[in-house]
Amino acid sequence: MHFADRLTEAMKKKNSVVCVGLDPQLSKLPAVLLDKMKGQYGATTSAAANAYLEFNKNIIDAVKDLVVAVKPQLAFYEELGHEGIRAFEETCRYAHAAGLIVIADGKRNDIGSTAEAYARGFLGKVDLFGEKKSIQEIDALTVNAYLGIDGVRPFIKVCEEEGKGIFILVKTSNPSSGDVQDRVTADEKISVAQLIGHFVESWGSDCIGESGYSCVGAVVGATYPAEAAKLRKLMPTSIFLVPGYGAQGAGAEDTKPCFDAKGLGALVVSARGIIFAEDPRAAAQAMKEELNKVR
Amino acid sequence: MHFADRLTEAMKKKNSVVCVGLDPQLSKLPAVLLDKMKGQYGATTSAAANAYLEFNKNIIDAVKDLVVAVKPQLAFYEELGHEGIRAFEETCRYAHAAGLIVIADGKRNDIGSTAEAYARGFLGKVDLFGEKKSIQEIDALTVNAYLGIDGVRPFIKVCEEEGKGIFILVKTSNPSSGDVQDRVTADEKISVAQLIGHFVESWGSDCIGESGYSCVGAVVGATYPAEAAKLRKLMPTSIFLVPGYGAQGAGAEDTKPCFDAKGLGALVVSARGIIFAEDPRAAAQAMKEELNKVR
Repeated sequence: MHFADRLTEAMKKKNSVVCVGLDPQLSKLPAVLLDKMKGQYGATTSAAANAYLEFNKNIIDAVKDLVVAVKPQLAFYEELGHEGIRAFEETCRYAHAAGLIVIADGKRNDIGSTAEAYARGFLGKVDLFGEKKSIQEIDALTVNAYLGIDGVRPFIKVCEEEGKGIFILVKTSNPSSGDVQDRVTADEKISVAQLIGHFVESWGSDCIGESGYSCVGAVVGATYPAEAAKLRKLMPTSIFLVPGYGAQGAGAEDTKPCFDAKGLGALVVSARGIIFAEDPRAAAQAMKEELNKVR
Repeated sequence: MHFADRLTEAMKKKNSVVCVGLDPQLSKLPAVLLDKMKGQYGATTSAAANAYLEFNKNIIDAVKDLVVAVKPQLAFYEELGHEGIRAFEETCRYAHAAGLIVIADGKRNDIGSTAEAYARGFLGKVDLFGEKKSIQEIDALTVNAYLGIDGVRPFIKVCEEEGKGIFILVKTSNPSSGDVQDRVTADEKISVAQLIGHFVESWGSDCIGESGYSCVGAVVGATYPAEAAKLRKLMPTSIFLVPGYGAQGAGAEDTKPCFDAKGLGALVVSARGIIFAEDPRAAAQAMKEELNKVR
């Protein structure tokens, strides 16, 4: 089934547009969990990775009926080397089994032949000695389009074949996102973010599902609502993945421009605000309700 | 010791500016190696990863006195999941032990707090239950600056602390690199690639080594020599990491604008052209000599 249709259906069924960022950090995990893993595996990457996995499973169990998707941030797993990647993989499988859509936040980018390897590994199938196997259980990946269409096409091809999705960085949520993204181009008189927005809309035009949305989504930060409103108009067939809510400073009202007229078409992410909350379930519930009020 | 100084010293000592891309692909590996690993581990990611590692070790042994650095492309290892990352890690350690500089090609990018995790994991030290440990043996990482300075600062901080380097994507070697990178900005009347070039030069200005080069280098493709010439002038203190030679179409002459007046300041990469050559050592030797003729 088409990625955008699966995502849209899950939003409707759960009456939720919440995505939980699974961004574990050792210094913020419960002491009892850390002590247990350190006792079992020593002060190793293996202990840390197992702590991440158990922490993630608890979060997933707590929020799975309230949220649509999880978004593990690859940086935090890669920090622990191959043991971290193992924890990432098992987290994705566990989230999938819990009925959640899994978005890997890797912001991957490279030239065509290399992007093919990323696309196969994260979203498609890898040829292992003549047998095609899925390595990961991931529904979508974030992608950086600085290299142009060559670096994005391999991902779209796999998305079409496998019912997967990508979210291309358009306007990111961080304070310095304007350094490059807000520059105005001399020919088109639009920002670089808007230029990439045009690309996103065009690149996704051949893979639009029944929901009216394509398999090529866009990352648009809630911290720049005026820009988000322009981008929403410019990309009517792209689902927005919206970071910036909560710990990064944006409120529910700021996410409003990201939604379409039906209150769909955007998935809002919170990581620290949920996973490190005293009661993650209550935090997810509160976020769900706040967003439902504005969309 | 400062990264740029280590790199420059190695170039002088070996009289070489060659970097070998370690981009293994299962379909291109020797049948005898594949049969051996498949026999031992079955048709698994473990078998493939072990094949990559043994293949890489053979390449490193063959070329280590002729080349300055190796550049494993993370996509090809990530394609095999955590087993691939294990092979990547062991490849980096083996290359380091062979006296080579190791550049991880990951083109990583994210907001500040997340970029910190990438910086710690790839280039710095990770706090594991109160003990600071290096997870990888990597000298430099490629970085995508689409998110602006927030996403780059954490890398530079670790570079300064640990004597490591980054190479920021400026003008990439692929055919569609112009989609974004060649757009001209309305205010500065320069291309987006040149804009990022200015950033690179400015961001590196506080970490210039005795060689005159900073810890912030630039990726500049050999496939666009006219653009490279402009970028060389614009970034006098940045070492260029130069893809595009060989299989991607650029010849030795095309790399010329990337070098400084002393024939230094640029490291030229070839992957497929060396590692899949019938005689990788002969291919590396030929590339070394061709480049030495023009620089």
